[in-house]
Amino acid sequence: MQLLKDRILKDGIVKDGDVLKVDSFLNHQIDVRLLRQIGKEFRRLFADCEINKILTIESSGIGIACIAAEEFDNIPVVFAKKNQTKNIAHDVHRGKVESFTHGKTYDVIVSKDFLGKGDKVLIIDDFLAKGNALVCLSEMVKNSGAELVGAGIVIEKGYQEGGKIIRDLGIRLESLAIIDSMNENEIIFR
Amino acid sequence: MQLLKDRILKDGIVKDGDVLKVDSFLNHQIDVRLLRQIGKEFRRLFADCEINKILTIESSGIGIACIAAEEFDNIPVVFAKKNQTKNIAHDVHRGKVESFTHGKTYDVIVSKDFLGKGDKVLIIDDFLAKGNALVCLSEMVKNSGAELVGAGIVIEKGYQEGGKIIRDLGIRLESLAIIDSMNENEIIFR
Repeated sequence: MQLLKDRILKDGIVKDGDVLKVDSFLNHQIDVRLLRQIGKEFRRLFADCEINKILTIESSGIGIACIAAEEFDNIPVVFAKKNQTKNIAHDVHRGKVESFTHGKTYDVIVSKDFLGKGDKVLIIDDFLAKGNALVCLSEMVKNSGAELVGAGIVIEKGYQEGGKIIRDLGIRLESLAIIDSMNENEIIFR
Repeated sequence: MQLLKDRILKDGIVKDGDVLKVDSFLNHQIDVRLLRQIGKEFRRLFADCEINKILTIESSGIGIACIAAEEFDNIPVVFAKKNQTKNIAHDVHRGKVESFTHGKTYDVIVSKDFLGKGDKVLIIDDFLAKGNALVCLSEMVKNSGAELVGAGIVIEKGYQEGGKIIRDLGIRLESLAIIDSMNENEIIFR
């Protein structure tokens, strides 16, 4: 998606430790105009698919998923939660995600009320790197009895293993920008 | 907002411990059609105000804020983060929030790059109960040098002290549904 790549080149900042900061437009401050175009692009890429639910994980995926959901005829969004709160029933699907960004492991839960048989699920997230979050979410979808239609990712770090793991699992993966390499001076897209 | 009140009466569940579960449409599964109407209502209520940024706090506020931001001519959204990650610079505004839902205290941060002088800020969040999150966010706005225009809340627990605290601070507060009392059999709106 050229608009996204141009924005990454313009406003993305590569930091030590393999960090691509896009927090001026994607995951701290959010440019909703860009999110709308991202939503339209996901809809175009999955136009041939029957999808009736979008699943994401807190927090950065939520805005992307909500605006995309409008493009998919206002289907519901469900976001997986990273810690159990007392407001959530005990009847939940559970997973674990090791977060690259936070350097720790989270419990991830989705209420069984909102994911199960009959759901045709598109997973949406902002980043794909090692693939931990996406593998966790896809297992939760499959274990729930729902159908996993595919995954839409905004930025894939193509030099990390996540994309290969997901594709090897037979999951249809559409990444809007795939980075093949990056350093402080340049970002190379696939 | 009658559409919202009707939805709370239809799908909200009151649980022990003063919990109103609205996770089938607002803060776990999300009905984006409802979010669009909520966004339009916030725009209507603050139509007389000059606002150029929406501030919310992860996670449940993000979807609401993003869709509302489109109604405010695509102004940027910034969401405060509850834990410092290594992707965020050290140059941040800091606050603390005691969470009713999670029963613990969070550090809350917003990058100084995305909140400061010249910003005319509307704070948006899903719930107002004791007011901890909203007081924290409003202090961060004021300390940053930005102007706090007001706060838009989806559901206010009117029998708790948050609404009074915020209004006594002179902050313009617009809550789309104010609950005066609730139990397992009924929910009474103001």
